[in-house]
Amino acid sequence: MREPLKIAIAGLGTVGGGVVKALRARADDLEARAGRKLKIVGVSARDKGKARGFPLENFVADPLDLANGSADVVVELIGGEDGIARRLIESALDHGKHVVTANKALLAAHGLALAERAENAKLQLKFEAAVAGGIPIVQTLRESLVACDIQAVKGILNGTCNYILTEMEATGASFADVLKEAQGLGYAEADPTLDVGGGDTAHKLALLSSLAFGVAPALSAMRVDGIQNITPADIHFASEFGFRIKLLGVARKTSSGIDQKVHPAMVRSRSPLANVDGAANGILVDAGEAGPYFFSGRGAGEAPTAMAVIADLIEIARGASTPAFGRAASELKTLNAAAADAAPQPWYLRFEVLDLPGVLAEIASHLAHAGVSIESMIQRGRGHGAPVAIVMITHDSPQSAVERALKAISASDKVRARPCMIPMEAA
Amino acid sequence: MREPLKIAIAGLGTVGGGVVKALRARADDLEARAGRKLKIVGVSARDKGKARGFPLENFVADPLDLANGSADVVVELIGGEDGIARRLIESALDHGKHVVTANKALLAAHGLALAERAENAKLQLKFEAAVAGGIPIVQTLRESLVACDIQAVKGILNGTCNYILTEMEATGASFADVLKEAQGLGYAEADPTLDVGGGDTAHKLALLSSLAFGVAPALSAMRVDGIQNITPADIHFASEFGFRIKLLGVARKTSSGIDQKVHPAMVRSRSPLANVDGAANGILVDAGEAGPYFFSGRGAGEAPTAMAVIADLIEIARGASTPAFGRAASELKTLNAAAADAAPQPWYLRFEVLDLPGVLAEIASHLAHAGVSIESMIQRGRGHGAPVAIVMITHDSPQSAVERALKAISASDKVRARPCMIPMEAA
Repeated sequence: MREPLKIAIAGLGTVGGGVVKALRARADDLEARAGRKLKIVGVSARDKGKARGFPLENFVADPLDLANGSADVVVELIGGEDGIARRLIESALDHGKHVVTANKALLAAHGLALAERAENAKLQLKFEAAVAGGIPIVQTLRESLVACDIQAVKGILNGTCNYILTEMEATGASFADVLKEAQGLGYAEADPTLDVGGGDTAHKLALLSSLAFGVAPALSAMRVDGIQNITPADIHFASEFGFRIKLLGVARKTSSGIDQKVHPAMVRSRSPLANVDGAANGILVDAGEAGPYFFSGRGAGEAPTAMAVIADLIEIARGASTPAFGRAASELKTLNAAAADAAPQPWYLRFEVLDLPGVLAEIASHLAHAGVSIESMIQRGRGHGAPVAIVMITHDSPQSAVERALKAISASDKVRARPCMIPMEAA
Repeated sequence: MREPLKIAIAGLGTVGGGVVKALRARADDLEARAGRKLKIVGVSARDKGKARGFPLENFVADPLDLANGSADVVVELIGGEDGIARRLIESALDHGKHVVTANKALLAAHGLALAERAENAKLQLKFEAAVAGGIPIVQTLRESLVACDIQAVKGILNGTCNYILTEMEATGASFADVLKEAQGLGYAEADPTLDVGGGDTAHKLALLSSLAFGVAPALSAMRVDGIQNITPADIHFASEFGFRIKLLGVARKTSSGIDQKVHPAMVRSRSPLANVDGAANGILVDAGEAGPYFFSGRGAGEAPTAMAVIADLIEIARGASTPAFGRAASELKTLNAAAADAAPQPWYLRFEVLDLPGVLAEIASHLAHAGVSIESMIQRGRGHGAPVAIVMITHDSPQSAVERALKAISASDKVRARPCMIPMEAA
């Protein structure tokens, strides 16, 4: 039997605490899996005194001290794009230690540099827990779906957003009300911007895109919209058309480059992504000739995320050697962003208008002028002069054309509020 | 850059041909993934002269010659539980070569012995392509979902059966008619027994069960039923209750041991497994506290299966070292089969009866006598004396109790044909 793998853990929140507990509770089974013992030789946390349900062994006050201790691997669970998390990872690599992290913000921003640093030192940099919790999508893209020509990756990658949209659909309540309720239940942060604004999904998408397409992770040129403007009316109309609204991260190959975007999208009710409910995550991989693959499960929480960290630790314990993003850092290409209109698609449009003669003609004419044609429409009148909703599904249209039409339509005095546009995903 | 990985391939059917083509077509990308070139140094096939769309390089007439050639890895794609496939694998391991195989029948029967042989020689034995084609479920259970206490694995593992059931549902045609059509299209073998009888699913389930529960693969004590007796009426009634019928392989922990079985089962229409259509495969893993995970995709065919073989080759090229079934062969326990009634569940029952007074009372009384209670019922009359269907859903009941009741009911002269019983899966 080989020497134990010596592990240091920085950050003992939900994930870090879960890792410590699982390493203790399942020690024998994990040893059988890893071929050696997994031993914690150091931990660090902001609040030493907090009740955690397990004793703190080998606590150090300064997490940076873990980088030059006796550990073989440093597990970074502090979070944050820069600051101490970044310094800890860099220092750990410089001191000859493998790194496991759940830090998507940091990897999305500095992934290439960190991957190079790890490779130059012949060390592993692993991050299964950074994307979609317990769903092994990082390993799947890095090691399993490697012989196919991946065309697109589409994911529900933020459990908070998916919980809010699921609740809005179930209860008919507004975004603001469901958000407040989710905050009360601890499903949403006090400052929910990173989640509901799509930023967290963007970080994760950048990592998936890198693994799928062999590019360095890049957030630049990624269009990011959140779910703040989705109304119960949109969810209702989506359902009338046989669709549901989900916040998707989408990365796909186009003839002009890679199109990466985060946005609320309509997905067909019977599609696998549409049936990812509540705080779950789901990912669809269009693997070209090898067909579509779909993966779903819990995307956050103690058990799934701790499990992902431990899977990385076991791979390191077994001596596996795989570049962080599936290819040597020197082989990762710079992402060539697709032209804005590279992927025309159908759009859902909702207008709130005054029920006056000529309003439909005016809208239709602006759309026609921009080259946007209509596939189907719902109009519900309420009485002359009162506001009504006009909802349309377009044929495949470039985003800029739809935006141009909507800008012109917004200027009309018969149109109230800002028109809503939501892309429809084919799968 | 390291030396090329030298590969020998025995069997150039759909999968083997796909591997050769993909290794040629994607050579540069695969080299970047593997960190070295992947080079074919020998191939063998039954029919040398067959048109394959690629030149045969380094052909040998006797596949066994590949075991003592220059290869680092032998890929066995001949198939069959014993015979030449087994001799090739044993000989390859004895000659110091890693082995990649898609042969579930052989691994289900001899997995433990082969895993020991590989480990003793410090060689890799890999079989991602043996289960569910391109879905990376072997890697996921072996390397990703390793820190959780898996409670159950449920899979649609045979594309032929799933295609037949999907077509029966869509067209209302009988099993025999759809099977004949599937044979014409090449979706079913001339002798379909291994597929439609559940044997192929059983082989795959034994491998998943081993990976999930740390036991040696075992087919003994596995109850295996196929789809031959499913009628369009059953599919219709399932839909009235909000269910669909799928052939499932189910392995789960019970208090008395591991329950492994293959059977047509009712699954709730909105569940992920119910929405696996046509020739696709899908697998649900109940990972205890870490929640359920679901994986779906193409389970057979050239591209997905070749991709799985190549993923194994790349892991070997990278020098990864993982025991075949996730733990050292010496750590694999002998499967302790659950008692037959360890997992009571609800059942769908269909009786074809003569519409005569007292028939329902007679059925109900036999069920009550066996301790089986009814949750809901559909009866459709046609006219006095004509045969009608009575369909019932029971509360949770042990299989033996249901079988006892059905035996007694079958003896009645008011009951025509053999009653049908199908378990209902909770998820």
